[in-house]
Amino acid sequence: MKFADRIARLGTETAFAVSAEAAAFAAQGNKVYPFHLGDMNIPTPVNVMEAAAKAMRDGKTGYCPNAGIPKLREVLAADVGTARGLRYSPENVAIQPGGKPTIGKFFLALLNPGDEVLYPSPGYPIYESQIEFLGGVPKPYRYLEGERTFTIDLDALKRQITPRTRLLVLNDLQNPTGAECSTAEREALAELVLKHDLYVLCDEAYFDIRYDGESTSFVSLPGMVERCVILYTFSKKFAMTGWRLGASIGPKPIIDIIAKLNVNDESCSNHFIQYGAIEGLTGDQGGPRQILSILKERRDLSVDLLNGIKGVHCLRPNATFYLFPNVTAAMQAKGFSDYESFRRALLQETGVSVCSRLHFGRPLPGETQFYIRLAYSGIHLPEIREALARFKAFIEG
Amino acid sequence: MKFADRIARLGTETAFAVSAEAAAFAAQGNKVYPFHLGDMNIPTPVNVMEAAAKAMRDGKTGYCPNAGIPKLREVLAADVGTARGLRYSPENVAIQPGGKPTIGKFFLALLNPGDEVLYPSPGYPIYESQIEFLGGVPKPYRYLEGERTFTIDLDALKRQITPRTRLLVLNDLQNPTGAECSTAEREALAELVLKHDLYVLCDEAYFDIRYDGESTSFVSLPGMVERCVILYTFSKKFAMTGWRLGASIGPKPIIDIIAKLNVNDESCSNHFIQYGAIEGLTGDQGGPRQILSILKERRDLSVDLLNGIKGVHCLRPNATFYLFPNVTAAMQAKGFSDYESFRRALLQETGVSVCSRLHFGRPLPGETQFYIRLAYSGIHLPEIREALARFKAFIEG
Repeated sequence: MKFADRIARLGTETAFAVSAEAAAFAAQGNKVYPFHLGDMNIPTPVNVMEAAAKAMRDGKTGYCPNAGIPKLREVLAADVGTARGLRYSPENVAIQPGGKPTIGKFFLALLNPGDEVLYPSPGYPIYESQIEFLGGVPKPYRYLEGERTFTIDLDALKRQITPRTRLLVLNDLQNPTGAECSTAEREALAELVLKHDLYVLCDEAYFDIRYDGESTSFVSLPGMVERCVILYTFSKKFAMTGWRLGASIGPKPIIDIIAKLNVNDESCSNHFIQYGAIEGLTGDQGGPRQILSILKERRDLSVDLLNGIKGVHCLRPNATFYLFPNVTAAMQAKGFSDYESFRRALLQETGVSVCSRLHFGRPLPGETQFYIRLAYSGIHLPEIREALARFKAFIEG
Repeated sequence: MKFADRIARLGTETAFAVSAEAAAFAAQGNKVYPFHLGDMNIPTPVNVMEAAAKAMRDGKTGYCPNAGIPKLREVLAADVGTARGLRYSPENVAIQPGGKPTIGKFFLALLNPGDEVLYPSPGYPIYESQIEFLGGVPKPYRYLEGERTFTIDLDALKRQITPRTRLLVLNDLQNPTGAECSTAEREALAELVLKHDLYVLCDEAYFDIRYDGESTSFVSLPGMVERCVILYTFSKKFAMTGWRLGASIGPKPIIDIIAKLNVNDESCSNHFIQYGAIEGLTGDQGGPRQILSILKERRDLSVDLLNGIKGVHCLRPNATFYLFPNVTAAMQAKGFSDYESFRRALLQETGVSVCSRLHFGRPLPGETQFYIRLAYSGIHLPEIREALARFKAFIEG
């Protein structure tokens, strides 16, 4: 059987292989502490569930418009616009079956074979996969570990720009580092976007997963709203990962193309759950507040315990539900010189299942520090305590 | 703003433009009889809805595996296999957010630019759109109106085959003609598939929408199971069009690729509605039986009334919920020589909204007969009666 040539360039989320390993280990009767996947063990708010179930019973079971039901497009345009100081109309919104579909559709709409794309590495691995799948040229930019946050290596990013550079992927607030761009970083990037006539995928999946203060969007900078497509998702804010609902939000001409891709790819998103999303955005906000409060406790406990392990250094991100501790010294102390043997030993010896930098794009030349990624969205406090005590014993014992 | 070159080759379902016209006409206070879209105004069976709602409340709201939950893959493999006399295992099944995603993913997996694809015209327009979007060469084959059914013009199909022909799309039972392949047609096609080393997308969306006897799958023929991917959907059998749930079913190597495309495109399908689908397949079958009984009454009334209109000739298909009457004489009698002016006049004068042959791929050279398509899945009996009386008066008055 001969597949299309493009299939050889198709990547994946290797984190799912970690899930499979963890599941196999658990099936042998072992306790597993699941820090590897960004899934959530927090219930979807009850008012959201009730609104969706009611719409189902009320017969919202037929097709809906390709770009989503008008009311959801309207309230989402208002919600996202208000939070960013922008005016979006329903025509700027195309509902999607999840946050992820915006990645592929953005590239389908704008990327020609041979075009170069700037994207973060470490970063969400689907950027790299989709760029290469569609014949684009991957131009990764890196993050540097700072005192309080990771920062984009802007000098290195600039050196990647050529006349063929056409698109930028910005994931602010970032998976896996938890980094938030500084104002200076955003301004420098916006200047590059204008200077080099780039279009931008703003992956803002974690915009609302923030513990102090308010998020700022890159799209709010002058000239950016015409050049940015926001990846919006209901998955995190409303603990709806398995519902598969999100949106592409951006300039009408691109959104029209993305809606036409919807017609071709899946017709529309599930009809009745869109009523749940309307309730989420417009109804009682106790649910999202509680989700954030749960996550913040987990963050603080995890960071404190990780920093209590010899040879581990972990920043305390203000956003996302990920931690990206530097484990270089811990690995050295235990005699590990490669990621996978360290990760596997940790799983086998302690049950603590994590991803490493390797699961977030191909490592770049000159990387000397070692990082693992922990998601605390799917694990309760007592298990975090137990898991990181085992982790500590493994490293220090 | 410059889009990727491929966007110029992206088609759509022009039936949605008809929907928009019909909606605009209704908004002016006019009564519209919606025969244009294959949506359903029949409720999803209650047991399916209850199972989905229960799974939601039980917390099936996180991610599930990319290819679907194991139990659904298992019961669907058994159900589809039994109905076709084949043995499928869960590994042959990748759950999708609808029937339609199988079309795009099949071509992404198997079609290289320049490859030629045989597909029906008239036929579901997304085949033509996806083939051209991905750089394939469209090779449409036609249907001929027979005494009791439409038949594939096999001689013309054979003349389309060249050394570059690589894929075949077969939509048996067919939209828009309602045609079912004869045994001889299936055998002739299977011979061509083997002779020319083709792979086949078997769009079996209407396999279970059948009024008498039992459907036969092309996949059941010798040597075909290794070469066919079945497009399966829950949309029609369970009146779940707006739920967006279906599956790709076929050889494990292709299904593995399609599941990897799931990882890249949308992670997974909605988690809790998959429990509704399990109940649909394994629970009480009163729901699907009632749906068929409602549809059959509508078919019979529609066919009888259409054949009572001077210059209209309509076959009585045993499957699908579409009619494809020949309206050549009626159009001539009213002085119409093109589809769109006839369709628009019919809408404006009577409120009867239909699609025409034009909405199912580009017409082929030598077509001399005129056809319209009526979907009776979204319109109740009294309105069918009213609508087709108006239609008759419009033609004969």
